[in-house]
Amino acid sequence: MPNLDGRSLPLQAAMAEVATDVHAMLDRLIPDGGGESGEARLSAAMRYAVLGGGKRLRPFLVVESAALFNVAPSSACKVAAAVEMLHTYSLIHDDLPAMDDAELRRGRPTVHRMYDEATAILAGDALLTRAFEVLADVGVHGDPAVRIELVKELAQAAGIAGMCGGQMMDLQAETESLPLEIGAITRLQRLKTGAIIAFSCEAGAILGKAPQQMRHALNAYAHDLGLAFQIADDLLDVEGSSTETGKDTGKDASANKATFVSILGVERARSQAVLLADQACAHLDPFGPAAERLREVARFVVDRRA
Amino acid sequence: MPNLDGRSLPLQAAMAEVATDVHAMLDRLIPDGGGESGEARLSAAMRYAVLGGGKRLRPFLVVESAALFNVAPSSACKVAAAVEMLHTYSLIHDDLPAMDDAELRRGRPTVHRMYDEATAILAGDALLTRAFEVLADVGVHGDPAVRIELVKELAQAAGIAGMCGGQMMDLQAETESLPLEIGAITRLQRLKTGAIIAFSCEAGAILGKAPQQMRHALNAYAHDLGLAFQIADDLLDVEGSSTETGKDTGKDASANKATFVSILGVERARSQAVLLADQACAHLDPFGPAAERLREVARFVVDRRA
Repeated sequence: MPNLDGRSLPLQAAMAEVATDVHAMLDRLIPDGGGESGEARLSAAMRYAVLGGGKRLRPFLVVESAALFNVAPSSACKVAAAVEMLHTYSLIHDDLPAMDDAELRRGRPTVHRMYDEATAILAGDALLTRAFEVLADVGVHGDPAVRIELVKELAQAAGIAGMCGGQMMDLQAETESLPLEIGAITRLQRLKTGAIIAFSCEAGAILGKAPQQMRHALNAYAHDLGLAFQIADDLLDVEGSSTETGKDTGKDASANKATFVSILGVERARSQAVLLADQACAHLDPFGPAAERLREVARFVVDRRA
Repeated sequence: MPNLDGRSLPLQAAMAEVATDVHAMLDRLIPDGGGESGEARLSAAMRYAVLGGGKRLRPFLVVESAALFNVAPSSACKVAAAVEMLHTYSLIHDDLPAMDDAELRRGRPTVHRMYDEATAILAGDALLTRAFEVLADVGVHGDPAVRIELVKELAQAAGIAGMCGGQMMDLQAETESLPLEIGAITRLQRLKTGAIIAFSCEAGAILGKAPQQMRHALNAYAHDLGLAFQIADDLLDVEGSSTETGKDTGKDASANKATFVSILGVERARSQAVLLADQACAHLDPFGPAAERLREVARFVVDRRA
């Protein structure tokens, strides 16, 4: 569980601490099946994907937003684990040969390269399913209404008006070589990566039964953060090396893909990301100093090298 | 909504009536996106798959089990639609080239043949997600505990100890040409198809807040029914034509797949199915004549030709 003394840690150390907690939670929630059966193979693939590291940015957002409302750390950690399962499922499916056909993820072979395509599809399916099962079981002092709210919001963030819809738009733009404009790219990213980041930030407010305006403030923060994050990601694809990022880089340019960087250019994209991060922080004003960690996250997101 | 006069209809007419209601509900729950965007393509693929007919056996089980406990027909129909979404998602993913590589389903090209592989993967993902979203929104007189129970049970039926785990076992047995014994096949089918049939039968009891022993009786009925259904399916694969079944037949034998029929032979398999159907009916004794429809379903399942 997150250590309360952790408040005074530098951001990266605090993130590492949450990552450790979430790792332990995921390890417990997806037990090793053992043996040689199909289920054992499936749980091994799920564990390979979900326990393979990563920044655990979304779980950190869940834990930090929950801390604003004095939510029990164990509940926040469980929701954080569910979000990471959902995020990992989307990576596994997006990496498939029929989609982005990626070979590397978090510095290791993607799930379909390590196992096979069928196993990767099923591991993704099972992680998506498990995320809902875990949310339906979050301890919230016997209040099922909170759990139902979490399930509903996560389903919306993951579905056709969220991750699935965004990925479909992304694929279609690529197939048809459509010249996406900045508005279309913004909308695409809002769906594909923004919705789940928004869920991560709002989850704390849902768990803490916070007033609507607090939830709206976190939603507004999340949307600017998500866009800043995506622009930074596009910049890394152009400027980073796969050693730093742990995944294939330069893929966007070679796929002739319209990104924030291809449209705005490196310099304008970078200043846009910084602007969005500042704007994200401004939305946190109502929380005062309590939200300092979330402000640090916004700055971190645009400064990161991986 | 199911017509109460429907009680006196012959089984097939009653099933057709529920199928019509569920079709209308699915049509409403997955609206046509319209236009040319990615979301429109995704919703078109989802609708192609889920509105393409089928017996709607699982929805019928939901509606009939709910009728035992005087559940509002509109709530039962919504849960039935969610179950059909989940079932359709599993068909879409199982049909993929990396899995069973099927060309026909319900008499039409499979989703990845009609659209493409990426769209089929995403349409499956989005249907799975939507099923949970719909369950989280079932009207049950403001009782969120019932909804959470439904979400939890569906997730279990769909996950590693249900459909996903069963499909993985199935694929692994095929890849490794493992000589599955009757015990292993029974277990595989219990996971792959039995769990969701069990959920369909128990959903009514959950919606109606029925006593545990009623729920156990329906669970026992469902397990025998599910096995009888699978044996009948294996028999159809050997004896049916794709004109009758609307899907590829003879695939099990050409894949050298161990099935109930390949192990027991046609005659013993058929009598085993009949025995299981009788056993299923016996579990319904506590419900008396009210459960006659469910008894008819058990007999129908082993007699069907498609």
